[in-house]
Amino acid sequence: MAIQALIFDVFGTLLDWHGGVAREAERILGPYRPDLDGAAFARAWRDRYQPGMEPIRQGARPYTDLDTLHAESLEGVLAGLTLAEAVPAEARHELVLAWHRLDAWPEVPDALARLREKYLLAPCSNAHVRLAIAHARRNRLPWDTVLGAEFAQDYKPKPAVYLRAVEALRLQPNEVMMVAAHSSDLAAAASCGLATAHVARPGESGPGTGEPAPLVPVDVAASDLADLARQLGC
Amino acid sequence: MAIQALIFDVFGTLLDWHGGVAREAERILGPYRPDLDGAAFARAWRDRYQPGMEPIRQGARPYTDLDTLHAESLEGVLAGLTLAEAVPAEARHELVLAWHRLDAWPEVPDALARLREKYLLAPCSNAHVRLAIAHARRNRLPWDTVLGAEFAQDYKPKPAVYLRAVEALRLQPNEVMMVAAHSSDLAAAASCGLATAHVARPGESGPGTGEPAPLVPVDVAASDLADLARQLGC
Repeated sequence: MAIQALIFDVFGTLLDWHGGVAREAERILGPYRPDLDGAAFARAWRDRYQPGMEPIRQGARPYTDLDTLHAESLEGVLAGLTLAEAVPAEARHELVLAWHRLDAWPEVPDALARLREKYLLAPCSNAHVRLAIAHARRNRLPWDTVLGAEFAQDYKPKPAVYLRAVEALRLQPNEVMMVAAHSSDLAAAASCGLATAHVARPGESGPGTGEPAPLVPVDVAASDLADLARQLGC
Repeated sequence: MAIQALIFDVFGTLLDWHGGVAREAERILGPYRPDLDGAAFARAWRDRYQPGMEPIRQGARPYTDLDTLHAESLEGVLAGLTLAEAVPAEARHELVLAWHRLDAWPEVPDALARLREKYLLAPCSNAHVRLAIAHARRNRLPWDTVLGAEFAQDYKPKPAVYLRAVEALRLQPNEVMMVAAHSSDLAAAASCGLATAHVARPGESGPGTGEPAPLVPVDVAASDLADLARQLGC
């Protein structure tokens, strides 16, 4: 079957979460910790990301959005830096909004504009709708609609997230290509019957931290989103 | 509270369903009924629209999309014209797709582009996601995302459809304005706490068939979408 839609992972694949959160953390926490290492802060916060979603994936907790999970996990990160007492509620709220103020990797907006001429495009991310809208407005991401966690009321890599996205597009799984920088995401999508494209982000959270190449079989392996557009004839 | 988002009824309010379905019916059914009255056909089909959704609203049937409901109700319309035998399956499928090929009222794309500078915008329609995408791509409707029936898995005027849209936008109900040409839609939204704007479409399904003015109290009454944009300072 010919691919008719591309659905995208967002954090890391399209957006530089590491640089954005590091920048915002240094700005917001500067008054309380002038020598804060924003990059380490961003990684420490992100390390609490997967565990926070796990009770929802397991059905032990109803769907709860990333703003809420980020606010919860922030407490532990601040406590680890002995900042739990010092940082007021407004600054914590601003920190949660750091995840709304992420910048796209440089080639992304133009590559998506080209891909949109040929394919339906939607995020299939763990971001909720409002967070996805903030990303799109900030970075000119030309989505046809927002799919993903909130639409499915569950978190990747649960099959429902991919399958509800395919259903909303009224396509067959093999007409939809999941695009991500993380092999685990692509393996889960492939197990649901979707086509897959890997985008290399070797510096996702600092030099040498991301995947320079897919760790699983994929339909397309691209060096960045512009390369993916080229390989797809856009 | 200041309005931060506008959500829209689509059929009749933004799109000329009557003219579009009439045009497509005459094109597709011409070989089987050369003198078909497309306008009457469109109205007869639309008359079966509300009854088709009723079992879903009542919880007697799971959420079923408009393409499916349109395909079901088409059978009765064709039978009423003694066309049930004559029209092959491919032509029936094409007729269902007539609802994907509707044109916006002339002022709509430019007015939405202006409104988008100030507000989040989403359809809150009974159309499913893929149908809403077809409308948006055909008419340059600059949605931030698609909300409405499929997102809520129910049909307007059930409160869940409005309230799930408000929730997805992470706003309070009084920060969201429902825009529609139908007073019943606006009354339902108002009962959920949303602000309301009426757009006059007096010729919705032919001269004298639509609402020239709201039949219920609303926050804004507009003569068309350009007028609404002006009244909202866009």
